[in-house]
Amino acid sequence: MTEILGITMGDPAGVGPEITVKALAEMSAGDRANTRVFGNRATLDAAQDAAGTAVDLGGMVHDIEIEGGPLPFGKISPAAGDAAFRFIEAAIRAAERGDIACIVTAPINKGALNAAGHHYDGHTGLLRELTGADAAYMLLASERLKVIHVSTHVSLRDAIGRATPERVLSTIRAGNAHLKRIGIEAPRIAVAGINPHCGEDGLFGREDDDQIAPAVSTARGEGIDVKGPISADTVFHRAYQGAFDLVVAQYHDQGHIPIKLVAFDTAVNVSVGLPIDRTSVDHGTAFDIAGTGKANHGNMMSALAYARRLAKGPKA
Amino acid sequence: MTEILGITMGDPAGVGPEITVKALAEMSAGDRANTRVFGNRATLDAAQDAAGTAVDLGGMVHDIEIEGGPLPFGKISPAAGDAAFRFIEAAIRAAERGDIACIVTAPINKGALNAAGHHYDGHTGLLRELTGADAAYMLLASERLKVIHVSTHVSLRDAIGRATPERVLSTIRAGNAHLKRIGIEAPRIAVAGINPHCGEDGLFGREDDDQIAPAVSTARGEGIDVKGPISADTVFHRAYQGAFDLVVAQYHDQGHIPIKLVAFDTAVNVSVGLPIDRTSVDHGTAFDIAGTGKANHGNMMSALAYARRLAKGPKA
Repeated sequence: MTEILGITMGDPAGVGPEITVKALAEMSAGDRANTRVFGNRATLDAAQDAAGTAVDLGGMVHDIEIEGGPLPFGKISPAAGDAAFRFIEAAIRAAERGDIACIVTAPINKGALNAAGHHYDGHTGLLRELTGADAAYMLLASERLKVIHVSTHVSLRDAIGRATPERVLSTIRAGNAHLKRIGIEAPRIAVAGINPHCGEDGLFGREDDDQIAPAVSTARGEGIDVKGPISADTVFHRAYQGAFDLVVAQYHDQGHIPIKLVAFDTAVNVSVGLPIDRTSVDHGTAFDIAGTGKANHGNMMSALAYARRLAKGPKA
Repeated sequence: MTEILGITMGDPAGVGPEITVKALAEMSAGDRANTRVFGNRATLDAAQDAAGTAVDLGGMVHDIEIEGGPLPFGKISPAAGDAAFRFIEAAIRAAERGDIACIVTAPINKGALNAAGHHYDGHTGLLRELTGADAAYMLLASERLKVIHVSTHVSLRDAIGRATPERVLSTIRAGNAHLKRIGIEAPRIAVAGINPHCGEDGLFGREDDDQIAPAVSTARGEGIDVKGPISADTVFHRAYQGAFDLVVAQYHDQGHIPIKLVAFDTAVNVSVGLPIDRTSVDHGTAFDIAGTGKANHGNMMSALAYARRLAKGPKA
């Protein structure tokens, strides 16, 4: 089993290249020997100039040409979007071959991606389609709070419809399996309610009783230590105080609001349920500061650390 | 203008009586002279025994008889629910007469209230009906984060429908007027989006563009310093870091999740938009510990402090 991580450089015009080289410069020599970059060599060299780093990239870069490149930092373009797509595609194939243990993605720009003819809602949809996976769950991980989402990039109205017993159950199972992989032997999971006070016995909606409770009950029957639905206004506080290892959030903002409040710059985005492993920074391309060397690479370091944990732990 | 506050004792079987006497014992003599209690004298005496306090209640209590009382602590009963209702009713009438400046409510039990034939979803509905108000907005206030809700005790599905331009606009106006009353001369308000990333140009729902943005625009035209809709996964973080004095949350959990995470025991519940002022503790009756003297009265102290701010500030 390889423990090599593969960083995808992200949109070449964004902060991806510079946070990549800054992370490479800061990591230990041993970790660096176990890291590859799927990106463009000339762009990484320019990023080193901007960031003031001098990492010997020889042999470390899976070099992919950019049409008309290297491109200027800070400018959205189809060429950049297409390159970002090809970096990810190459990394996925390497992961499928077993050449790398986990993909760690730098940010891409959805507009550039779509302008290049790659129609995805972002990394997760792209990874799901290119790997042929049925489903992928977004898990946001910080030290004291972790959340996994039943649904993400759909309207709030659609999200209510997606919180089916089947989907809630699959999310609980995926979260439980993932926690075991990062070394939590008996994961304690809580499922957030979807209506205020979990609907208060049907007074404010029946989804908690009819859709969520049965899924929790089935999961408990499978031996998973899961509780819920628990009122969303208390469950994140309880998890943050240590009562649970993971909260199943019913919709995007339900999970994102608490994580972003307590771990704005540090939460790692983890794709759960794909045939390959992937972690990611949880910020955007920041075109406004790209190429200046100012971008903070702390979140990239956290994404790499989480990926190493997955690479060293038991496989799914 | 009076500066006298009126505490309603809450459900006599809950922790309301003991947090009331503990708060009275801790406050300054000057504040105590400006405080009345709408409750039951015999129950308050029993609460003093439990809490180990010895406040001279003489002349301070608007004494209301309890059928079959005093009642045992910790037991839900219609008699307790009916008494809790009558404490609030008496306080409302006193506020309407101008005898007290603000009502500060201890917790009631919805089940007991309804068992006594008083069919309300809690304090807010009760206050609205008894004062004949058109609307009331729930504002949760902590030191670094304040949120006001467009809707509260309705299903998530209904909440989406209630986020109309008219209702969002009314909430912004009510929040703005309230902040001025607590001494913020030029309130900075943010309005949270309802869909993930505010719907990302209609990709994940159109409510942000069609319902929320027009309300913000109208409010700005009225001279209110309000921004939005802002993605819910960043707006609370920004407000918590000091960028805004108040966030308008579109539904119960959107506002409650962040407040409960950063100010679980300290947030004050404030009713905005009623003809009278009311603040409240933001916890329940805690029947399991009622009568033991263990209940923490910190939240009651915060609710009283906020009420004094309202009592001393300019009127609406």
